[in-house]
Amino acid sequence: MTLANHFELLGQSDAARLGRLTTPHGVVRTPAFMPVGTLGAMKGLHWREVRDAGADIVLGNTYHLMLRPGAERIAALGGLQKFTTWNGPMLTDSGGFQVMSLAQLRKVSEKAVNFRSHIDGAAIELSPERAIEVQLLLGSNIAMQLDECVRLPAERDDIDRAMRLSLRWAERCKRAFETAPDGHMLFGIVQGGDVPELRQQSARGLIEIGFHGYAIGGLAVGEPQEVMLAMIDETAPVLPQDRPRYLMGVGTPEDILEAVARGIDMFDCVMPTRNGRHGVAFTRFGSVNLRNARHADDPRPLDAESSWPSTRNCSRAYLHHLVKSGETLGAMLLSEINIAYYQSLMSGIRAAISNGTFESFRQQTRAHWAQGDIAAL
Amino acid sequence: MTLANHFELLGQSDAARLGRLTTPHGVVRTPAFMPVGTLGAMKGLHWREVRDAGADIVLGNTYHLMLRPGAERIAALGGLQKFTTWNGPMLTDSGGFQVMSLAQLRKVSEKAVNFRSHIDGAAIELSPERAIEVQLLLGSNIAMQLDECVRLPAERDDIDRAMRLSLRWAERCKRAFETAPDGHMLFGIVQGGDVPELRQQSARGLIEIGFHGYAIGGLAVGEPQEVMLAMIDETAPVLPQDRPRYLMGVGTPEDILEAVARGIDMFDCVMPTRNGRHGVAFTRFGSVNLRNARHADDPRPLDAESSWPSTRNCSRAYLHHLVKSGETLGAMLLSEINIAYYQSLMSGIRAAISNGTFESFRQQTRAHWAQGDIAAL
Repeated sequence: MTLANHFELLGQSDAARLGRLTTPHGVVRTPAFMPVGTLGAMKGLHWREVRDAGADIVLGNTYHLMLRPGAERIAALGGLQKFTTWNGPMLTDSGGFQVMSLAQLRKVSEKAVNFRSHIDGAAIELSPERAIEVQLLLGSNIAMQLDECVRLPAERDDIDRAMRLSLRWAERCKRAFETAPDGHMLFGIVQGGDVPELRQQSARGLIEIGFHGYAIGGLAVGEPQEVMLAMIDETAPVLPQDRPRYLMGVGTPEDILEAVARGIDMFDCVMPTRNGRHGVAFTRFGSVNLRNARHADDPRPLDAESSWPSTRNCSRAYLHHLVKSGETLGAMLLSEINIAYYQSLMSGIRAAISNGTFESFRQQTRAHWAQGDIAAL
Repeated sequence: MTLANHFELLGQSDAARLGRLTTPHGVVRTPAFMPVGTLGAMKGLHWREVRDAGADIVLGNTYHLMLRPGAERIAALGGLQKFTTWNGPMLTDSGGFQVMSLAQLRKVSEKAVNFRSHIDGAAIELSPERAIEVQLLLGSNIAMQLDECVRLPAERDDIDRAMRLSLRWAERCKRAFETAPDGHMLFGIVQGGDVPELRQQSARGLIEIGFHGYAIGGLAVGEPQEVMLAMIDETAPVLPQDRPRYLMGVGTPEDILEAVARGIDMFDCVMPTRNGRHGVAFTRFGSVNLRNARHADDPRPLDAESSWPSTRNCSRAYLHHLVKSGETLGAMLLSEINIAYYQSLMSGIRAAISNGTFESFRQQTRAHWAQGDIAAL
């Protein structure tokens, strides 16, 4: 059976794609960056700020939410959108990636991944079927298949084994998703590490099963940027033109721009909020470390021409003071400044694709980054 | 010489006073609650939220700001209002209270208080003259005299000695303030612990010196509420009708309501933000501890009839989850919910005085608090 398609490809500029993904909770303009609200909250931001910054969709982490407050509880409370008050489109990962990175005594079998909670040590089994059940309980608009993600560098045999297991799990996830209510989407995840032919085998296997969209997983896990981009180059051409493509866990503004240039539609990353908490701002002229003493007496804002009020109005001296003093407001301001920068980048990308000028936008954006921050006073 | 008066008494309902205090940065409607922005920032709130909640004026702590980022630096950056982007009326304390509670190796002499910074151990001298200089550098609209505050219970001799020293310092502060630009105000601080006649001597001494306004200090330092209210009863009638009266460091919503009933116009306290960070919300029906497991599955908001969106829209279950998970958003939401509750209380108080119905407002408000939170599901 053919899956309903909620994605429209609206235009293209070279390989960069402009699209629209429709969910019962609203429309997602692509290319889209999804801020990460791990535990049902963005760290340091109110939902209204995420919305104001221009985000159409956010990501929730299934692993964290199933442990606390629990998927059944969120379902009883009306689902994740209502629970969090975000009330917009939401994608959930499958939990697999966090199981690999956070859980204790992890054991992967054909049937499932078994682990102990990092909070209270409780024994938990996450099977492909349970990963889908949990995501449907959460009520996310886009669910992800359970997969096994291998850290790079890795042996080819390990990459191959994990890719094939992920394909078998993809099939079980698809079956488990058959009872999902209308309007919910399920994405498959291409694995295959840094081995081009395994990436292509994975993509073809997923397409045969059939998904609402296709993610590229297992990248941004320690490999150099060239490897990541090369893997996108190997994979994207294999993927169906009419379905959304999501590059998981990516990345820096530069990673995103380069991946859009290779035909990717969706992204997520904790970097804007995490770096914000550590005193680093993303701007049109690259990243700025506000801990640096050069900012202590600098009355200038991060970017006088930004459309985001805090970026335009807060002095570097004030941000420096807040960061150095450990005031929550420092992390709050830099997190919203960074989310706003990421969203303004996406908005610029979408406008450029729409105008057929993506390549010149890309060159200009890279030139600004290369130019670097304004000189110290 | 007579000091300019920036305060207008607009009305009275029993002893409760409605007023207006005018500063170059804006008008303060009294009775007013001043949220505390210790280090040039409210913990967990953006300034726009403080403003939206209805606060006309905020308080900055001179002790903290003189240590970090430094008064001279803030002056060079255009003053505290510009530095912080708050841009509204601001009162600064004199630094004396924090020196007593935070600084190390503190030594009080006739000349000054000498101490070591709690940050880097630097030796610092805070004299009455320096306290005024620092506050003028900060550019606060209302400066406070340097005083010595004695923790209760204390011996009468100690209270007496500190009160007389504070009076002599008041005189020196007044003299140091003579060069202040137009529109800046200086408040004297009534001391005298829990001894009625010392309180009255202090108030009379200050009136003789002459200030723009009068604060009652040295309360809310560990004494029972009856003692605090009794001291207000002893002091307020002595103070000039046409000048603002500020009860320092107070307090709970009930403390504020009772002090307004005794003729107090201004308040400040860290309680709404501090308790918010600890998971406690202030509501029309008393305080609610969101850590309590009874809220885990409760879809109801804190107060469905509140005019503040987060109070009305966030479920107790969501707030409980955020607080239990240590998510910053929990502290952010509860801090704004509490500041909004305090400001709505002040707004209700002002409306009631204006309508001449303060006493019935007071009874009704107390009845709601006594009624307590809604029953668990």
